[in-house]
Amino acid sequence: MQYQNLRERVCAANREIDRVRLAILTWGNASEVDRLSGVFAIKPSGVDYDALTPEEISVISLASGEKVAGVLNPSSDTATHLHLYRAFPQITGIAHTHSPAATAWAQAGRAIPCYGTTHADTFYGPVPCTRPLTCEEIESAYELNTGRVIAEHFHMHSLNPLEIPGVLVAAHAPFTWGASAWQAVINARILEEVARIAASAEALNPGVTPVDQFLLDKHYLRKHGAAAYYGQGGDPGDRIVNDKSRGHR
Amino acid sequence: MQYQNLRERVCAANREIDRVRLAILTWGNASEVDRLSGVFAIKPSGVDYDALTPEEISVISLASGEKVAGVLNPSSDTATHLHLYRAFPQITGIAHTHSPAATAWAQAGRAIPCYGTTHADTFYGPVPCTRPLTCEEIESAYELNTGRVIAEHFHMHSLNPLEIPGVLVAAHAPFTWGASAWQAVINARILEEVARIAASAEALNPGVTPVDQFLLDKHYLRKHGAAAYYGQGGDPGDRIVNDKSRGHR
Amino acid sequence: MQYQNLRERVCAANREIDRVRLAILTWGNASEVDRLSGVFAIKPSGVDYDALTPEEISVISLASGEKVAGVLNPSSDTATHLHLYRAFPQITGIAHTHSPAATAWAQAGRAIPCYGTTHADTFYGPVPCTRPLTCEEIESAYELNTGRVIAEHFHMHSLNPLEIPGVLVAAHAPFTWGASAWQAVINARILEEVARIAASAEALNPGVTPVDQFLLDKHYLRKHGAAAYYGQGGDPGDRIVNDKSRGHR
Amino acid sequence: MQYQNLRERVCAANREIDRVRLAILTWGNASEVDRLSGVFAIKPSGVDYDALTPEEISVISLASGEKVAGVLNPSSDTATHLHLYRAFPQITGIAHTHSPAATAWAQAGRAIPCYGTTHADTFYGPVPCTRPLTCEEIESAYELNTGRVIAEHFHMHSLNPLEIPGVLVAAHAPFTWGASAWQAVINARILEEVARIAASAEALNPGVTPVDQFLLDKHYLRKHGAAAYYGQGGDPGDRIVNDKSRGHR
Repeated sequence: MQYQNLRERVCAANREIDRVRLAILTWGNASEVDRLSGVFAIKPSGVDYDALTPEEISVISLASGEKVAGVLNPSSDTATHLHLYRAFPQITGIAHTHSPAATAWAQAGRAIPCYGTTHADTFYGPVPCTRPLTCEEIESAYELNTGRVIAEHFHMHSLNPLEIPGVLVAAHAPFTWGASAWQAVINARILEEVARIAASAEALNPGVTPVDQFLLDKHYLRKHGAAAYYGQGGDPGDRIVNDKSRGHR
Repeated sequence: MQYQNLRERVCAANREIDRVRLAILTWGNASEVDRLSGVFAIKPSGVDYDALTPEEISVISLASGEKVAGVLNPSSDTATHLHLYRAFPQITGIAHTHSPAATAWAQAGRAIPCYGTTHADTFYGPVPCTRPLTCEEIESAYELNTGRVIAEHFHMHSLNPLEIPGVLVAAHAPFTWGASAWQAVINARILEEVARIAASAEALNPGVTPVDQFLLDKHYLRKHGAAAYYGQGGDPGDRIVNDKSRGHR
Repeated sequence: MQYQNLRERVCAANREIDRVRLAILTWGNASEVDRLSGVFAIKPSGVDYDALTPEEISVISLASGEKVAGVLNPSSDTATHLHLYRAFPQITGIAHTHSPAATAWAQAGRAIPCYGTTHADTFYGPVPCTRPLTCEEIESAYELNTGRVIAEHFHMHSLNPLEIPGVLVAAHAPFTWGASAWQAVINARILEEVARIAASAEALNPGVTPVDQFLLDKHYLRKHGAAAYYGQGGDPGDRIVNDKSRGHR
Repeated sequence: MQYQNLRERVCAANREIDRVRLAILTWGNASEVDRLSGVFAIKPSGVDYDALTPEEISVISLASGEKVAGVLNPSSDTATHLHLYRAFPQITGIAHTHSPAATAWAQAGRAIPCYGTTHADTFYGPVPCTRPLTCEEIESAYELNTGRVIAEHFHMHSLNPLEIPGVLVAAHAPFTWGASAWQAVINARILEEVARIAASAEALNPGVTPVDQFLLDKHYLRKHGAAAYYGQGGDPGDRIVNDKSRGHR
């Protein structure tokens, strides 16, 4: 099988979406890019997670957007993933879910304020919410334009996609990313938990305010960058993440 | 066993209601019609899902409403299913659940507005809520009148049951339908997820507004009709759905 | 073992509390009375459900309230059960849980209005909430007085415990009852689901009103009494309930 | 292996955090002190629960705060645990989770009022919420200062850590403690359930008031102290707790 390792990793990441209940039915997909080979691998469209095999994973050219391996149709969101890989050269994996709490914030059209350390550990500021797509953007090249609206938001607000590894698309749902498809799914889990806790915090205290900048700095930088001291050194969580994506449980 | 294939399919769909927690105890039922044979098969009344066998599934004449196979009493909601099969000749399967989020909207007496793409993928507009039944409708032929009130709502509002594959009965619970009993249960899962997310979106933003018509069009038509491009071609989700209803996991 | 059948039934009902997550840790207990023998069996105090054996179930004299079999201390709520068996001669089993949605209504000090058919199928009116106990009632014979306050509420409001098989004790939690310990646990499950859906319905529509009396009549009497037509005849759900309480899954 | 029994107990308690879903990913840690040996054992940083072994558990000197056994880096929250063991000589185990309902109260910056008996059984008053840490406290010795702010709160309000076995750190999450690592995790479960029910009670009745002092006294003292009569005698829950921490299920 061509791109075997990449497809196995992407298959495992997609199955994880189902295992941790980030999407019902086939409502989510994960991909990972191999920039040296100039391709990314992504879930096929409308196929159940529990029957998914590496052979069924589609492989797409980063240059042309055409399928280069796999017999099934790739995810209908493939053009969004393609645009994000082009717009954000720093990222290696993407996950798109419809996890309920994060999707509720997206439907409410609201960014998620940073109310606590669980948020600050991963997202160095609010999780942004894009503007709605226009009629024109929706009627032609919808999935591509979804990627464009995300990239536009990060560009206009000077956000670093490594520091804010996710976004809510208004009236739609979250996209997250990271150093691998697996890490993108991990970030989707974190986003869901953060979204759920933030909604409850607002219900308990309508006047709740975001954390101070110094708390945000402390928690984010404790896990990321040169001065990080969480975990066992190296890429954060790398040892465990790799184990898992090889099927270790 | 008479109608073996139909009864096996209906048994699998009913067990799925339990597996995905759309009803506790015996609070749900699914049926499927075979229009060539002029019968539909439905869950027996008050029997647990985990012990349910195809032999226990009741078979009912579409013409007379009488039981033609099965020794147990059919679901007490049989007259509702019967009326819906007669009123909506386009549908082949029906599911009735009391999934908590959808039931809360029904008890609140509110249609579910379309706040996002997960809704638009399946329901081409708000999920409607019927008027309450009158005293007369409840005191005689209650279950039949439940079907009538549903059909009346779709007729009065010119709704196409293929485009809006479900409804909330006021003060009661949801009914969904589709191209098979299995697909009706899938639609019940989607309705529950949509109901849950919509309630959370309203809590996060009391001024949330429904999606634009062009977004609704895009998402619905991406999955349904001649221009659909989601999935692997053919009836949407058909390959996987059939696998599942044959017991594949 | 003395009272073997009774203790096996009570052990199974208590384990069911845990299996369906009506209580965490040891926060629930179920009992069943054998009125001919003049005893009831109840969970021992503070013992985990998953290790519980019939031998560990305590047996209590209905006349004296003294333990007549079992080496462990009976539930600290034994005096409440005893008083309810004496006050409500129609009932055979009792369950006490701290399921979260029902307990929230109890802590809120509110009866649960009947907002829908799931409620009406089992509770022939609102699920009542007692008055708080006084300082005197709490400081002496607290558990006995808990039973007294429940019975007082039913007496003062002329409620029939067979028609309203449960209650919320203010600032505390629910008690439910039925024709067996198993049925009492079933009613605790129903109460939890009803409580959860009612809370969501109020959030979705603060002006929601209880169902009409004729809908309440229809649904309750469809399942209970001489004209019942739900299920397979005989005691409602009896066949399945008995299977389950014998360990069938 | 050095400190084998202690590390096995701490490993089991950490795995329990995962089993009962008090934290996703690696978002929680439990520790236990052996005051005779002058050490405490704690989870290593950033390691998954399901692969955790006793050998991986770090052992820390209570006097110096230095690691005395184990090759992995200890939890980044080690300095918080260390300070709590020094400030609260009565406690033997500590758990830190990010369970969603308790964390929402922490992010809302609110103590959890005692609205019912489930709360009163374990917490002899509101579960307090600390003040936010200052910029200075966060920028240097953050984790140590987290412990200091907790101890300061208990000291200033004359709270007894045995009577209030947990706290919410503002904008962060809960810490709980007890007579063992296992008991600290049990208290974290109780806190989560209490937090969840209290939030629902407020939503159902915005005017809900805390329980009377005499109800608080009754329930707390029914389980704790010389006059306790819940359970089977001895340390409350001791028999079962010990079984569990030895891997009994």
